[in-house]
Amino acid sequence: MAACKELTANLVHDFISSVDTILCDCDGVIWKNNDSIPGAAEALKKLRLKGKRIFFVTNNSTKSRKQYIEKLLNLGFEAYPEEIICTAFAAASYLKHSLKLNGKVYLIGSIGMAEELDLMGIPYFGIGPDPVKSLDMAEWAALPIDNEVKAVLVGFDEHLSYIKLIKAGTYLNDPECAFVATNEDLRYPLGGKIMIPGTGVIVGAVKQAAQREPVVLGKPSKYLFDSIMQSFEGVTPERTVMIGDRLSTDISMGRTCGLKTLLVETGIDTRVDAKENQKSNSIERQKMVPDYFITSLADLGKTL
Amino acid sequence: MAACKELTANLVHDFISSVDTILCDCDGVIWKNNDSIPGAAEALKKLRLKGKRIFFVTNNSTKSRKQYIEKLLNLGFEAYPEEIICTAFAAASYLKHSLKLNGKVYLIGSIGMAEELDLMGIPYFGIGPDPVKSLDMAEWAALPIDNEVKAVLVGFDEHLSYIKLIKAGTYLNDPECAFVATNEDLRYPLGGKIMIPGTGVIVGAVKQAAQREPVVLGKPSKYLFDSIMQSFEGVTPERTVMIGDRLSTDISMGRTCGLKTLLVETGIDTRVDAKENQKSNSIERQKMVPDYFITSLADLGKTL
Repeated sequence: MAACKELTANLVHDFISSVDTILCDCDGVIWKNNDSIPGAAEALKKLRLKGKRIFFVTNNSTKSRKQYIEKLLNLGFEAYPEEIICTAFAAASYLKHSLKLNGKVYLIGSIGMAEELDLMGIPYFGIGPDPVKSLDMAEWAALPIDNEVKAVLVGFDEHLSYIKLIKAGTYLNDPECAFVATNEDLRYPLGGKIMIPGTGVIVGAVKQAAQREPVVLGKPSKYLFDSIMQSFEGVTPERTVMIGDRLSTDISMGRTCGLKTLLVETGIDTRVDAKENQKSNSIERQKMVPDYFITSLADLGKTL
Repeated sequence: MAACKELTANLVHDFISSVDTILCDCDGVIWKNNDSIPGAAEALKKLRLKGKRIFFVTNNSTKSRKQYIEKLLNLGFEAYPEEIICTAFAAASYLKHSLKLNGKVYLIGSIGMAEELDLMGIPYFGIGPDPVKSLDMAEWAALPIDNEVKAVLVGFDEHLSYIKLIKAGTYLNDPECAFVATNEDLRYPLGGKIMIPGTGVIVGAVKQAAQREPVVLGKPSKYLFDSIMQSFEGVTPERTVMIGDRLSTDISMGRTCGLKTLLVETGIDTRVDAKENQKSNSIERQKMVPDYFITSLADLGKTL
């Protein structure tokens, strides 16, 4: 059982000394939508000065690594391309290296995902609006289907449509067709009255249309951390910390991979949520309990 | 445990004598898409001649009662408005009489559903295309929200869009806002390679966006049969049969309501599926076992 303790000033030194590698979530940890979270850049800078290796590990599938670097630099963060571990890249890499895909991808996703597929030389189609044109079901049943499609890849897509669900469901009716999803986050961490559905809602709709489960690459799956360990020497679970704002993804992934875990309260979840999970008897919820929590990266930075 | 026996010619007379009321599903039982199923009209005619009361009980939410009557008459069936028990009508009736709704409905649904809301004098909006116009999440977060919305009603909507999911999720974030769905059928019974997602996929997406469960009016819920019993004298479960092609909706609803049940094999499920359910230890699957099965309504008609 994880301790779920506050990372107070007197504990920070020992905690930071116990790790070499820092996995840092983005949305809700270092930025919110298009604004950086105050103090986050300074905290990461201090960690770099202490010789820590930093990776930005994000489930958000709307951006390529190139787009992430631009955003990080624009918001005043120091960052390097190889530090970006995003699901758009992970998806292209998984299709190419793990599945050794020999065919086309039907993509329900973003321009960022398309960019990463392009870089990997994987043919795809499906991006952009695809609204229903006829209300006659007989015409839907005559939609053209591309027999070269060997995988359906799903990430965030604000152009989700009924026609896309018909196509994805039809391709996935062939058990040989791979089904890969970037992540299953259900909501975006945005304040205010409006609820912004996350990629999990898009993936959920495709799952129901297909009556199948996808391989999910994003947190809480181990895939992103495993890919870091494969690509970078000297990264070990014992000397790595996952810093995140979501118990169900960041913290759960950290615990599954045997990492140290730190919850920051600048995004989705708080210490109250973590303590609730700690009281639960469910094994799944016990994974959603961090070693430590702290108000913000800024608070961590101040004590370094 | 239901017998799950073939309704052979020598059993038909006693079976039909044991009922006064016949609930008949539409898609996959009397028609497929826009074609009538051969022999179905003759079978229903013979049942009427024997004095049976007939109701058309359908989960399909795309049509109003008026549209159903037109389709039935066009395809050569005898039918009367009061015999149409469809979920578009049931939804309007539920909002008006059970919820006594005092406010507007945000509708993810069909023109048929809108027609039934109009007839009931319930204000609504949301029908038709509502595509994403901006790719900026900050603009989504500033979408106009109507404070008079007191219910979200979801049925089949080929214009499902991400913006509709944002709006529905936002209205349903208020626990006082009612959440009503017509049905949860996952696929349309259409032959061929193309998979046509049903209303259940639309409802599922809204459920995930809202993180809430709706009241579902269609089969296998008891609501449609209960509403028949409330409106028509002399209808009793013991002397009613539900005829349908889906074990998970038609037959399960019949079993839940204490009706006799008959599976026809002209749509989704067959006797093989029924026998598989009969072998299962699951209580839920045991409900998906009919008293009888028969190839088609035509076969029933021939023996009458």
